[in-house]
Amino acid sequence: MAELIEVDDPTDPRLADYRDLRDVTLRRHLEAEHGLFLAEGEKVVRRAAEAGFAARSFLMAPRWLEGLDDVLAASPAPCFVVSEALAEQVSGFHVHRGALASFERRPLPALDDVLAGARSVLVLEDLVDHTNVGAAFRSGAALGFDAVLLSPRCADPLYRRAVKVAMGAVFALPWTRLDDWHDALPALSARGFTTVALTLAGDAVPVEQAVAGLDRVALVLGSEGPGLSARWQETADRRAVIPMAAGIDSLNVAAAAAVACYVTARRAAAGS
Amino acid sequence: MAELIEVDDPTDPRLADYRDLRDVTLRRHLEAEHGLFLAEGEKVVRRAAEAGFAARSFLMAPRWLEGLDDVLAASPAPCFVVSEALAEQVSGFHVHRGALASFERRPLPALDDVLAGARSVLVLEDLVDHTNVGAAFRSGAALGFDAVLLSPRCADPLYRRAVKVAMGAVFALPWTRLDDWHDALPALSARGFTTVALTLAGDAVPVEQAVAGLDRVALVLGSEGPGLSARWQETADRRAVIPMAAGIDSLNVAAAAAVACYVTARRAAAGS
Repeated sequence: MAELIEVDDPTDPRLADYRDLRDVTLRRHLEAEHGLFLAEGEKVVRRAAEAGFAARSFLMAPRWLEGLDDVLAASPAPCFVVSEALAEQVSGFHVHRGALASFERRPLPALDDVLAGARSVLVLEDLVDHTNVGAAFRSGAALGFDAVLLSPRCADPLYRRAVKVAMGAVFALPWTRLDDWHDALPALSARGFTTVALTLAGDAVPVEQAVAGLDRVALVLGSEGPGLSARWQETADRRAVIPMAAGIDSLNVAAAAAVACYVTARRAAAGS
Repeated sequence: MAELIEVDDPTDPRLADYRDLRDVTLRRHLEAEHGLFLAEGEKVVRRAAEAGFAARSFLMAPRWLEGLDDVLAASPAPCFVVSEALAEQVSGFHVHRGALASFERRPLPALDDVLAGARSVLVLEDLVDHTNVGAAFRSGAALGFDAVLLSPRCADPLYRRAVKVAMGAVFALPWTRLDDWHDALPALSARGFTTVALTLAGDAVPVEQAVAGLDRVALVLGSEGPGLSARWQETADRRAVIPMAAGIDSLNVAAAAAVACYVTARRAAAGS
């Protein structure tokens, strides 16, 4: 049962996890150092708790307590009850979905554990935008993907903004980070996955055709501006494109991820 | 040829079009009153000019002049040359893509003009988020849709944020607003379109099946929270769903738009 603790001093050190949430650089350091991540909004806080993450603390205005009372009842972490003005003062923004919670990160699972039993895996190279990372997780989860793998420099899926956009899919979908960028795709091929890289390269075939008949697929996406690295394009088993209207350069990466996940998850089975 | 005018007074009345760009309410009034819209970033400014919109003025730091020199050469509107600090002071945010321009809006075209020759039309009901409106335009344009129709209360596609996310697709794709919300879908049916509403309603069929064999299709999407209104769900010719993994409530509306546009644009022709 979370202890309810009223706090009216914005400098109270117990609120340290919630400071300056809009300062990405500061938050990166703070969250890495303390091994925490933030969840924002009743639904997302609930999903993190349901996924078994251990809360360090909760912070909310009184009117959000009732909606989360079962979550609070099940947690030993303290709940700091504050005015909305104080929440805004500490976090640096208007907390319009009310509840915040700080959770302990868990060690990242091993690649083989994430891939065990997976048939469709999304691989993201160097997406720097947390919104796009969150959107890719959400679409992947909704459209039937089994896991997500991130390049070493891909943005953190447990950053508050990514968590929020993903609507909790970052808790539901197994994921880990690839340590070895250079041989990441050959390592997946060696494990029985056909790596299909989304690219505008000249030899790319329509994605529907690229994934048809495949058993295990790793769908590989890069960021919108630079696209996939040359190394990953070269080392992918297949290069695929989403056919587009003449004169249009590209889809937004989140839209491309949604379409490619849809097509890949519904691929025709071998021999059908 | 745009006259280059150096401005170093942030209160200069000639900069009025660029004030307080983050204040959505104020901007709505100002832009409606003066019939203008803002474009942000070299690529988007260029696309607005190429689409034939008349510039009222340009505003940029010296380093952005060269990249837009052909656009400036072709326009009689003045170009206010300012420091980046002054641009930030006037607009209220860090203008990291540099160039801004203010363009004259044009009268909205008549529905029948927008629909002339169109085979795939996207219809958006009451999307309030400018990002989602922009993303829907971008995906629609990229995936081969011919036009977009907006419910009376749908957010403005020419609002700066929507324009930016759409990457100029709001200029390329014909669009207008539906005056009559109540009978909007029957009016489309009467014009030979099969209206296909994306919904989680019980009688919804997979979208691929819903659009198969159709000639002219109006794909109808609502906002993420409330979804489509009961009226629009009832008056649509067909109700369709994007099949999703168990336990997942929904896709983000931009992702849903991308998937549904992809499927609809590639629908099998009648008799095939």
